Amino acid sequence: MARIDINCDLGESFGIYKLGLDEQIYPLITSANIACGFHAGDPQVMRASVSMAVQHHVAIGAHPGTPDLIGFGRRRMELSAEELENALIYQMGALQAFARAYSSRLSHVKPHGWLYNAAAQDLDLALTVARAVRAVSTELVLFGLSGSQLVEAAKQIGLPYAAEAFLDRTYQRDGTLTSRSSNQALITDPEKAARQALDLVLKGRTLALDGSEVMIHADTLCVHGDNPNAVALLTQVRNKLREVGVEILPLGAKS
Amino acid sequence: MARIDINCDLGESFGIYKLGLDEQIYPLITSANIACGFHAGDPQVMRASVSMAVQHHVAIGAHPGTPDLIGFGRRRMELSAEELENALIYQMGALQAFARAYSSRLSHVKPHGWLYNAAAQDLDLALTVARAVRAVSTELVLFGLSGSQLVEAAKQIGLPYAAEAFLDRTYQRDGTLTSRSSNQALITDPEKAARQALDLVLKGRTLALDGSEVMIHADTLCVHGDNPNAVALLTQVRNKLREVGVEILPLGAKS
Amino acid sequence: MARIDINCDLGESFGIYKLGLDEQIYPLITSANIACGFHAGDPQVMRASVSMAVQHHVAIGAHPGTPDLIGFGRRRMELSAEELENALIYQMGALQAFARAYSSRLSHVKPHGWLYNAAAQDLDLALTVARAVRAVSTELVLFGLSGSQLVEAAKQIGLPYAAEAFLDRTYQRDGTLTSRSSNQALITDPEKAARQALDLVLKGRTLALDGSEVMIHADTLCVHGDNPNAVALLTQVRNKLREVGVEILPLGAKS
Amino acid sequence: MARIDINCDLGESFGIYKLGLDEQIYPLITSANIACGFHAGDPQVMRASVSMAVQHHVAIGAHPGTPDLIGFGRRRMELSAEELENALIYQMGALQAFARAYSSRLSHVKPHGWLYNAAAQDLDLALTVARAVRAVSTELVLFGLSGSQLVEAAKQIGLPYAAEAFLDRTYQRDGTLTSRSSNQALITDPEKAARQALDLVLKGRTLALDGSEVMIHADTLCVHGDNPNAVALLTQVRNKLREVGVEILPLGAKS
Repeated sequence: MARIDINCDLGESFGIYKLGLDEQIYPLITSANIACGFHAGDPQVMRASVSMAVQHHVAIGAHPGTPDLIGFGRRRMELSAEELENALIYQMGALQAFARAYSSRLSHVKPHGWLYNAAAQDLDLALTVARAVRAVSTELVLFGLSGSQLVEAAKQIGLPYAAEAFLDRTYQRDGTLTSRSSNQALITDPEKAARQALDLVLKGRTLALDGSEVMIHADTLCVHGDNPNAVALLTQVRNKLREVGVEILPLGAKS
Repeated sequence: MARIDINCDLGESFGIYKLGLDEQIYPLITSANIACGFHAGDPQVMRASVSMAVQHHVAIGAHPGTPDLIGFGRRRMELSAEELENALIYQMGALQAFARAYSSRLSHVKPHGWLYNAAAQDLDLALTVARAVRAVSTELVLFGLSGSQLVEAAKQIGLPYAAEAFLDRTYQRDGTLTSRSSNQALITDPEKAARQALDLVLKGRTLALDGSEVMIHADTLCVHGDNPNAVALLTQVRNKLREVGVEILPLGAKS
Repeated sequence: MARIDINCDLGESFGIYKLGLDEQIYPLITSANIACGFHAGDPQVMRASVSMAVQHHVAIGAHPGTPDLIGFGRRRMELSAEELENALIYQMGALQAFARAYSSRLSHVKPHGWLYNAAAQDLDLALTVARAVRAVSTELVLFGLSGSQLVEAAKQIGLPYAAEAFLDRTYQRDGTLTSRSSNQALITDPEKAARQALDLVLKGRTLALDGSEVMIHADTLCVHGDNPNAVALLTQVRNKLREVGVEILPLGAKS
Repeated sequence: MARIDINCDLGESFGIYKLGLDEQIYPLITSANIACGFHAGDPQVMRASVSMAVQHHVAIGAHPGTPDLIGFGRRRMELSAEELENALIYQMGALQAFARAYSSRLSHVKPHGWLYNAAAQDLDLALTVARAVRAVSTELVLFGLSGSQLVEAAKQIGLPYAAEAFLDRTYQRDGTLTSRSSNQALITDPEKAARQALDLVLKGRTLALDGSEVMIHADTLCVHGDNPNAVALLTQVRNKLREVGVEILPLGAKS
């Protein structure tokens, strides 16, 4: 029977600043990627995030980024391989301690922002990310853009991985995401998102913006927490997936 | 046979900034309290510290502080109990990940600076520290000033603890440390430090500044890494302890 | 003819995080207290804030705080007098440069959060704040709670000052603000706020929560930007003040 | 009569961390480039630096960098033009306030680390730097590597500038600095440094590493504060320059 994981970047508030509709999203997903205090998040937010994840049986993932709070980790920042590896280990460990405090554990890691995008294309960078994850635990699953160098890096070093596709982003015919600078980059119509989800899960493909078919293998589907339609979209996606008998489960969970 | 642990606060460098004679001190101690990036330390320094600790068979301890890098964690900063607990869990977790990366583990925790001093006198604060440690692991040993509320807090919640005395600080007749504002606060003469170490370990007492005897139970002896004589002092202390048959071992290690 | 200044704490966004309804509030006030990057604000937010202030002929004030972004400057943090003075000079200077970039200048300074409240009661702390302001310019007006040690400190060192009262906070019979822990601390009814504004400006007094009259001298009236009713409240206050012929003008502006 | 300015990057300590021999260098230079708290420096260090500069009649310059304290501003960090301009205005303003507190003023600006090197080669980046300087004051002198895009940018927007050459770095035949990765990059012999200084000032040229002559126009000569020989080197350079009648004066000072 088909199954799929649905993930979302969460825990991106900081101090007095609130970001995202975390409370509403946790009940609708199976994996949370939780910011670790470098580009977003703080110890209170991390603890609250882990607590919500545990309560909703959502797999706890680290979502580490560059030490760039003002830039939300979206700016290129050239850390050496050693600096990057250590920055990632530090952040994963910090989140891991909160998971343990709730008798739970880290299940996966997804790099954030600039790092996610850059490592998708740069194998050396991706290998550094993968090595950092492996240093923390060989059982952690590395989330990376389907077909990207992050997935390749995980394969090369023998780390578990999950190929990620997007519920709420459109694709180009070459399988890349439409640039956010395009006003067609985001999918906000729940119907369209549900169709993309079904195509991805059942057929391993979706329609590119130009109408062509593009093959994309997806182990996990991402929805953006800052998508204003995230809740409506997730609700529709979940309903449609279930109608056709697709189970929505964290990676590795028994169905 | 008598035994004692010798600890030191280490890993206090940051970025380009170097602090402490860590390389020279690791071979001479049995427990390292490693800064965790809030008041001092950074991911590179933490990794290097853990690596040195492992190499020298030194027990790895977290030395967490307040988020006050400019003030080196020495300034009063009133975090709520929840904020403090989470700040400590975060830091312990970050260091723990580096320990795991070296196939090792955290063995103890010692709060830093203002937090150490304030929690020594304030049971509520001490209980918050102790609960944070327990949240990370019930096997972690809490280091606290001998006779202080930190030790009391550990007892109350059933956490392992180690009462700490100082090799290189003088005591008042009431068992408190001589204030650093006094020019007699520090012991820099290796002979005097060795005598204090022997008295503490063998007799559970030392001479106060005024010549009176003061009873102090010590499970671990601390030397300050910023003491310019730390290496000479440690060498003499170790020689004298060994001459009288005292084993110098990490807490919990088999003799 | 009577006149009054209306001020608001603004520019409290940071990076991707948005806080406050700054765009809607600037047209309704005469003095802006702009965060300077330590407890809130960042260089982009500061520039945008100065730009809006200039556009709306609003006096530009610095709103410096403690270096405590996670705690939004609301936590006690004991800097030495020298550390505090320098932290304040730094922040004022940073904002001043943006004012100059728009051919404008700083007109006033209001300490933020814990510092505002603590300096209101502690003359030594207030004097440190006042000295920092004077070090930047002897023409800067120090905003402080009416009747507080901040006002006293400005008087003692000969610095211009403005006694501040609140449009949207209730008072106790001793002239202190009702604690925020009370659910009667905030005034959200525009009518009540307008009545308080008129009483303060025309009669130098207002009604305390218990119905007694309390004398309060106000040179400037503060509204909280995080008050969800701030815009409605300000609109009503302005209308009522103008109906009775009170001019709403920045301090020092010619009527 | 020939004259030259000698500058050094100073004020790079932070909190408890000490860096550089500032006290020994101030008496030997005429322009100080003072870190502004982003990549190094803090409010206490900035104040102490300004105080020393004033005492030794040394021109006060801002030495702003990227917000990268762990990386000491040496790592590529891609801020948008707007973000960079604002980060620089903020830092210059902060230092300016300390200068005013000592009845002095900023005289020049020299970008730090990665920004200095990148802007030397990238005209767009250099123009952003130059515009930020101009926004603070049209009288500030922009220090840039001789022949670099920083100098070109200042020319293009009509900002005063000073072409910088190095006392303690060797040159390649094309006029670029020998890479720091070479063990011949630094000049530590005071005699060689003095010869380079004289050649630069009197002849507008120096000998490249391969023995060829390379033309370099220098308005100001830089010495590195972290050069262990900085004091000996500066002493010899000053003696030799004075022997041949070259005045050592800040830019713009009357001889």
